[in-house]
Amino acid sequence: MSSPSPLEQHDLEAFLNRLKNYLACQSVSTDPAYREEMNKARSFLKEHLIDIGFSNIQELDGGIGGHNALYAEWLAKPGKPTLLIYGHYDVQPPDPLDQWISDPFDMQERDGRLYARGISDDKGPTLIALEALRCHMAAQGELPFNVKILLEGEEETGSPSLPNILSQNRELLAANAILSADGARWRADLTAINVGSRGNGGFELSIKTADLDLHSGRYGGAVPNALHEMARIIACLHDDKNKVTIPGFYDDVIMPDAETEADLHAIEFDGQGWTANIGSVEFGEEGYSTLQRLWDRPTLEVNGLWGGYQGAGSKTVIPNEAHAKITMRLVPGQDPEKIRASAKAYIQGLCPDGVELTISGDRGWTRAYAVPAKHPLLLAAETALEKTLGEKPLRVRVGATLPLSDLVLGTLGIDTVMFSFSTADEQFHAPNEFLRLSAVKEGVEAWIKLLDLVGEQSPSDYQAA
Amino acid sequence: MSSPSPLEQHDLEAFLNRLKNYLACQSVSTDPAYREEMNKARSFLKEHLIDIGFSNIQELDGGIGGHNALYAEWLAKPGKPTLLIYGHYDVQPPDPLDQWISDPFDMQERDGRLYARGISDDKGPTLIALEALRCHMAAQGELPFNVKILLEGEEETGSPSLPNILSQNRELLAANAILSADGARWRADLTAINVGSRGNGGFELSIKTADLDLHSGRYGGAVPNALHEMARIIACLHDDKNKVTIPGFYDDVIMPDAETEADLHAIEFDGQGWTANIGSVEFGEEGYSTLQRLWDRPTLEVNGLWGGYQGAGSKTVIPNEAHAKITMRLVPGQDPEKIRASAKAYIQGLCPDGVELTISGDRGWTRAYAVPAKHPLLLAAETALEKTLGEKPLRVRVGATLPLSDLVLGTLGIDTVMFSFSTADEQFHAPNEFLRLSAVKEGVEAWIKLLDLVGEQSPSDYQAA
Repeated sequence: MSSPSPLEQHDLEAFLNRLKNYLACQSVSTDPAYREEMNKARSFLKEHLIDIGFSNIQELDGGIGGHNALYAEWLAKPGKPTLLIYGHYDVQPPDPLDQWISDPFDMQERDGRLYARGISDDKGPTLIALEALRCHMAAQGELPFNVKILLEGEEETGSPSLPNILSQNRELLAANAILSADGARWRADLTAINVGSRGNGGFELSIKTADLDLHSGRYGGAVPNALHEMARIIACLHDDKNKVTIPGFYDDVIMPDAETEADLHAIEFDGQGWTANIGSVEFGEEGYSTLQRLWDRPTLEVNGLWGGYQGAGSKTVIPNEAHAKITMRLVPGQDPEKIRASAKAYIQGLCPDGVELTISGDRGWTRAYAVPAKHPLLLAAETALEKTLGEKPLRVRVGATLPLSDLVLGTLGIDTVMFSFSTADEQFHAPNEFLRLSAVKEGVEAWIKLLDLVGEQSPSDYQAA
Repeated sequence: MSSPSPLEQHDLEAFLNRLKNYLACQSVSTDPAYREEMNKARSFLKEHLIDIGFSNIQELDGGIGGHNALYAEWLAKPGKPTLLIYGHYDVQPPDPLDQWISDPFDMQERDGRLYARGISDDKGPTLIALEALRCHMAAQGELPFNVKILLEGEEETGSPSLPNILSQNRELLAANAILSADGARWRADLTAINVGSRGNGGFELSIKTADLDLHSGRYGGAVPNALHEMARIIACLHDDKNKVTIPGFYDDVIMPDAETEADLHAIEFDGQGWTANIGSVEFGEEGYSTLQRLWDRPTLEVNGLWGGYQGAGSKTVIPNEAHAKITMRLVPGQDPEKIRASAKAYIQGLCPDGVELTISGDRGWTRAYAVPAKHPLLLAAETALEKTLGEKPLRVRVGATLPLSDLVLGTLGIDTVMFSFSTADEQFHAPNEFLRLSAVKEGVEAWIKLLDLVGEQSPSDYQAA
């Protein structure tokens, strides 16, 4: 039987109209004022999923008063793999509104780019994935393998309900792997696929040296200054080679294997130009390249530090309190629990007698994630990209943290492959967020090819992975 | 001729009524809303000065749109010294109002203490000085020496007009010395006289490492972090003995002479109790006592430091900017210009390549001040205190900065003796400011004795000083 080609079913104009309607739903998850708009986005998706041919559509509630995730399934291919396709329907707030060239919730095309809040993160990439499924179904009346869909409504607020949603629906969500429509491509000029992301974790330091701010004339020189102590501690966290000094910090780091390293060094990357572009310079752990520092090496950053007088002019106080927010990016091999314990013990040890240091506000402590090098979905994704774009993609990592992969590995026991067609420079979370129009064509074509390739696989391929 | 005793002219009840009326003038200099109240305070003083017998009363304008100072004189004792008596009629704002037990502008007595905004700083001490002059005049129809009065209206806002007022009225204000009714006593349980104060100076550091805050996942480990650099610089400003590391910082320090040192060590001072009282600990430059650290040693303090995210939760940014406000307290011998230049050069040198450091916002750069050890007005003040309180006062310094002394020395070429009867624990600048009732009696008596003692001196005593 010679089925019609799914790609012939793709109608760009109809797709862009659908995308425009989806983007008009102001699904800002962080602000309760947009709750009705969140409902609108879910309604839009439900209708679209039904149109495509999905069934058993339901809302999954994490039970903590958050925004429900949306589930749908098409499971009519027994003997074929089952993939859980992930995306998120929530977006960042559009502020500052006055910096948008066009209305953030009214998609506009300018110079080959589509502008709207959420178009790149992650509504565009999600609709591209659904478009590929729609085309397949329209052309062949079925999908090449079993598909479950999970569309989250809280990605932009740190996925607070997702752990419950996953652990309470293990059966429903069971699959051979996750295929994520989220997780942007690194560069527009490079055919690459993300194979890993850094973990993270952090906490807040608070130092107290007296009951109140003290007059620097009446006390200066004779009592400790909370900011001096904080600066001393922060300065101790890196050595003169810019290595993190926390004992054991690097002990368990697993650097990428030779093949991945070779890929990495094959990338044409102008570190100097890259940093100059943001008004900065190349900097970091001695002995490593900029890309290694970004993807393969763990790091510790102070994200905020404050104490004392910040107003205009001067106020001659000895600050009695100082605060710092610290986060780390972790790489494969590092155990968040071990790093957390070592960091806290080390920092406490840096605090002198008579100075009170409190460590609180733990955040994250997510492991790094790396797709197994021979994972069948990764191999299929690479082939699909090569067939679409004409060249074998390089395997790259992302320095950021995508908690989904680690969370899904922990709860559902499966790996994640990122297959998004947004690009990291498309102003996510900022005014004038955009998606390249070319990404729509590339994305739909690559997704259709990927669906075909997975359709040629069997569940046992995944069990071996 | 046996004149009646000036002290017999003192009527406590009438004095307290007058003080209550003066305190009812809400002379808050920092807030333009109180401008009319500033006028009221000046009118009150003019009337009182006329009542006492002063003439040539005038307002001195610094020409920068500030609050005028008030001048008055009584110069009918040719051949006797001329003193310029200083006080200020402005007060701090009364906020936070809800923390006052009684109305800040309605003087109330409770348990031997008089409560009102400005009663200790500096309206009470000023009226005590005027009361002594009034009693003298009432008893003897004249004063024992020539008196000029200068009452400033901008002390609480850093005396912006005072340099102009002094330099534009050198002739009018010419005197043998300044006798200041401002400059609180250190402790209620110690008979002491302030013989010096520290200088000060400071600036602000701003570090920039990129054009904008950067995502710590996408950039972390590969670009500089403004807060790391700031912490490193701040941590470098003190060594492990808590000495300031600025080159030459201590080179010109003149420690007090043996006699003053002996006085200092004669003071019973429980440093541990003093710091425990404010929830702190004794701390500072190795090899010096707490009192030496406070009075005789220069110090450097970070008064404020900030950068990055300070809100709730976490935000994984690499801050592109960091700021710090720094001030120093200087001691006799140190040249503010030299310290300023050395500090700036040293701090600039601590900043690595690729990181932009700006030093701006110079403030202060006032010399330390010490009354010459044998200054006739100091000797007279000590005698007056001894005669009033029954014991020889110890010579102490104050760790804070009183720019008046240095300013007057520079413009009028004369020294300053502080003769105030407020005490440093009387909640200046805070709710429930008070003055000990006992200070009124002690103050009026000591001022009267001091007037008599100066009346026995001649201008030539001062020329020798």
